[in-house]
Amino acid sequence: MKIALAQINYHIGNFESNKQKILDSVKKAEKEGADIVVFAELAVSGYPPRDFLEFRDFVNQCNDTLQEIAAACTETAAIIGVPTYNTEPKGKPLYNSAAFVYKGKVQQLIHKTLLPNYDIFDEYRYFEPNIKFETVSFKGKKLAVTICEDLWNVQDNPLYRINPMDHLIKQNPDMIINIAASPFNYKQAEIREDVLRKNALKYRLPLFYVNHVGAQTELLFDGGSLAMNSKGEVVREMAWFEEDFAVFDTGEVESAANIQAPQHPGAIARIHDALIMGIKNYFGKLGFNKAILGLSGGIDSAVTSVLAAKALGNENVYNVLLPSQYSSEHSVTDSLNLVKNLNMPHDIIPIKKSYDALDETLKPYFKNLPFNIAEENLQARIRGVILMALSNKFGYILLNTSNKSEAAVGYGTLYGDMNGGLSVLGDVYKTQVYQLARYINRENGIIPENIITKPPSAELRPGQKDTDSLPEYAILDTILYEYIENRKGPKEIVAMGYDKKLVDRILKMVNLNEYKRYQTPPILRVSTKAFGMGRRMPIVARYLS
Amino acid sequence: MKIALAQINYHIGNFESNKQKILDSVKKAEKEGADIVVFAELAVSGYPPRDFLEFRDFVNQCNDTLQEIAAACTETAAIIGVPTYNTEPKGKPLYNSAAFVYKGKVQQLIHKTLLPNYDIFDEYRYFEPNIKFETVSFKGKKLAVTICEDLWNVQDNPLYRINPMDHLIKQNPDMIINIAASPFNYKQAEIREDVLRKNALKYRLPLFYVNHVGAQTELLFDGGSLAMNSKGEVVREMAWFEEDFAVFDTGEVESAANIQAPQHPGAIARIHDALIMGIKNYFGKLGFNKAILGLSGGIDSAVTSVLAAKALGNENVYNVLLPSQYSSEHSVTDSLNLVKNLNMPHDIIPIKKSYDALDETLKPYFKNLPFNIAEENLQARIRGVILMALSNKFGYILLNTSNKSEAAVGYGTLYGDMNGGLSVLGDVYKTQVYQLARYINRENGIIPENIITKPPSAELRPGQKDTDSLPEYAILDTILYEYIENRKGPKEIVAMGYDKKLVDRILKMVNLNEYKRYQTPPILRVSTKAFGMGRRMPIVARYLS
Repeated sequence: MKIALAQINYHIGNFESNKQKILDSVKKAEKEGADIVVFAELAVSGYPPRDFLEFRDFVNQCNDTLQEIAAACTETAAIIGVPTYNTEPKGKPLYNSAAFVYKGKVQQLIHKTLLPNYDIFDEYRYFEPNIKFETVSFKGKKLAVTICEDLWNVQDNPLYRINPMDHLIKQNPDMIINIAASPFNYKQAEIREDVLRKNALKYRLPLFYVNHVGAQTELLFDGGSLAMNSKGEVVREMAWFEEDFAVFDTGEVESAANIQAPQHPGAIARIHDALIMGIKNYFGKLGFNKAILGLSGGIDSAVTSVLAAKALGNENVYNVLLPSQYSSEHSVTDSLNLVKNLNMPHDIIPIKKSYDALDETLKPYFKNLPFNIAEENLQARIRGVILMALSNKFGYILLNTSNKSEAAVGYGTLYGDMNGGLSVLGDVYKTQVYQLARYINRENGIIPENIITKPPSAELRPGQKDTDSLPEYAILDTILYEYIENRKGPKEIVAMGYDKKLVDRILKMVNLNEYKRYQTPPILRVSTKAFGMGRRMPIVARYLS
Repeated sequence: MKIALAQINYHIGNFESNKQKILDSVKKAEKEGADIVVFAELAVSGYPPRDFLEFRDFVNQCNDTLQEIAAACTETAAIIGVPTYNTEPKGKPLYNSAAFVYKGKVQQLIHKTLLPNYDIFDEYRYFEPNIKFETVSFKGKKLAVTICEDLWNVQDNPLYRINPMDHLIKQNPDMIINIAASPFNYKQAEIREDVLRKNALKYRLPLFYVNHVGAQTELLFDGGSLAMNSKGEVVREMAWFEEDFAVFDTGEVESAANIQAPQHPGAIARIHDALIMGIKNYFGKLGFNKAILGLSGGIDSAVTSVLAAKALGNENVYNVLLPSQYSSEHSVTDSLNLVKNLNMPHDIIPIKKSYDALDETLKPYFKNLPFNIAEENLQARIRGVILMALSNKFGYILLNTSNKSEAAVGYGTLYGDMNGGLSVLGDVYKTQVYQLARYINRENGIIPENIITKPPSAELRPGQKDTDSLPEYAILDTILYEYIENRKGPKEIVAMGYDKKLVDRILKMVNLNEYKRYQTPPILRVSTKAFGMGRRMPIVARYLS
């Protein structure tokens, strides 16, 4: 049997575009002699459709689109992810389904059993879990069709009481098919491959895996669809971060010899590629093509600018330098060197005149109180106003340049440098931003060396350094990682050898600044725990704060 | 048996304060001769603790606190909501539990069965559902202890396949006890009472219900704890919007005659009281006492200012008038009349100087393009900058004054008038804001009549009116309500008699402005569907947009 895997970048709610992409792949599969073509989880709607699923109109459109696709699947069969109605009197209104379509109509619906409801996942919000298990019979073969998480209850996963494959295996399937929407993080590829391997080995079956590719606001999908033999060897892994299509002969997958394990890039290279895809798709799917950002002379805005240039083209990234009286000379020259290296459009717009006007306006009300955080923030907010004015005038999207370390401890100005339509580095710790800069510079030094080597500073008062109010980033980031990614408490972190006062101070800063993060742009998610939809914290609370 | 109900305003993660309040009520119950005192769902942690539950340190502190409380419950028993560990090898790591404590220790744990996972609820994210049913035996009585949603699968609720009371009733309990965390919306009291009544009647048992009271960021809890007899009559309903404590003799609850049904205020009065509590608790629990807001002369900021004054005291609401060249004269005089009526602190800070400076700074880059949305937003953002500068300088929290109609269609400036720590009216449609104003003015006309009667305008360009770009609010709000609260699609709304073009335009505006709402402050929730944690939409999508 010949099985085609279609790894596609869908657009949530854009039924016309999703349908067209699916139909194109059906045609291609047919042309290449495939018996069946497999699409990802919730392919018809895009993933995650979130609360659109609460609209019957939306679900009806999903089902209408599925019917149109089915009508075109006359010779070649297809498996397509789609939300369907639960027609039973009890349970949630929908299923997360895989439709098996053939001979012009929907022949069978397989529903998802294990519904992830942690981190960024909310599937139990919408879907009723499946409790009936049936393989798909097709051309003399039996296909164990599973949906993403359905394969994730192998061995030691304590979350679920049920394992769909344990039921399906009783029907003696010939292969496992898994349609997925498995979001990227820089550790995910190995975890995913390991889970799939455990299934192939446990059930002694070849496995065909189709993932989403592309960005859906903050969620990045890396693709990496694959065919695996029953020995758990990856016969072929498909592209990362781009659409791909491949046809496999199921017999050949099993008989293939001298299989080379796929080679994967390191964490920083993955983050680099993922962020570029994230920017590209955010703009592309919203119908924009030009970015604006404030270039401060620091490493965060420099890296953001280069990533944007790689995503959108150098000519589409408008770099605005907004020096104040506290800006060092090198902040301007370093920035100019960067924009020159990539020949990017730029302007220098000093904020002095605006600052003076606002300062004078506020003076009678500030009651001779000394310069403090209010004046520091004022500078950042004037920059925000100027960038947004240019964004509004010309239709740029403002890119936010804050990193994860800053976002964590609230080292940033709300309505100032925390502005933007999209946060590029908000899930990248400062120490990782340095690594990204080095990675970007691996061939030719795009980012001026001085930007990488000088001590980081917000330059909002004379001689200010980040280390005036924060510990060294190497220490800060480690503590943050233990708290945010690993959910360790203060006692556990102190037990790792960190100073108690420092740990308490950092965790307090993280929790007290929940209110700031609540109002920040969506953050491209590259870690196992990003700020945003996957981390849900109360604002008004007093825990470690 | 004498049973005390303790309706308390908890503080999430503030174990010391929660413990103290619980212990005070235990003492009071003991003093009043109660056999048992009942506290709300997750009383120890506060509700909702959200992802704090993913920290073992947090759950450990909950359990340590419970042990301390139990130690004090020697004579009087107590039922207390607390998260506990699931010690089984499979399933989610926690239970949402009711601890029955007596004789100085935890005697029994009852776990929640029905875990709400819709709208603002995420309980399936953390908790394993209970599958074992056991009543609590105490002093010769059997108590059917249930946790909030456990009573909500009566009659036609299709969400769940199981009904805990159907199991518990087999053990012949003497009464139902329900500990809840049931958030307010202006329709909830009747729904809640109806659900409780259905249970009392179906199982022919008296029912004791303890709810939370107070605000937890955006979620408002109205209290309304009650005792109901087995005929479904409310023997006594406890206070709304404040802490309360009552002791009931279970026999007297059943024998009481001539019971008067509780009288409830109307929707607008409820919203009024709920918002005041929301502001008060937001400030109080964060340790702030002073608010700042921009008073535009329009009805939204006027109503916000009055509600804040009622919550915080007139002297703690700093009203800033920020007129521009496009501000009408009445916008200033109306505002001044309002602040005079309540003797609130205020200042007039014209934005012209700041606007001119920024306009001049931007001119060379605006390339002689005509005045448009960029300049309109510039004014709103300068106001935002001034308000935030004063907020930073003096420790005010800025109140956001946007209403739900504006938030829905994106009629507001990001980083401008959409700023604030808390949105007071973001879940109140414009037509309801007018009703609130009339309600506020019911005794003495605090809000100047002209603010209520003049046509609404953003005053960002000469002669601007809201109706230049929006339909009449009466029509807009009805369409929005059908779309947002009722999740009707365009076809269904058009079928109700609305113009197709108008409906399409409005729904498109709602969906296109998801990116703005993503970055707005938490919104006090008073409806069945508020923007924020209970409405989760993709930003990058193309559905109805």
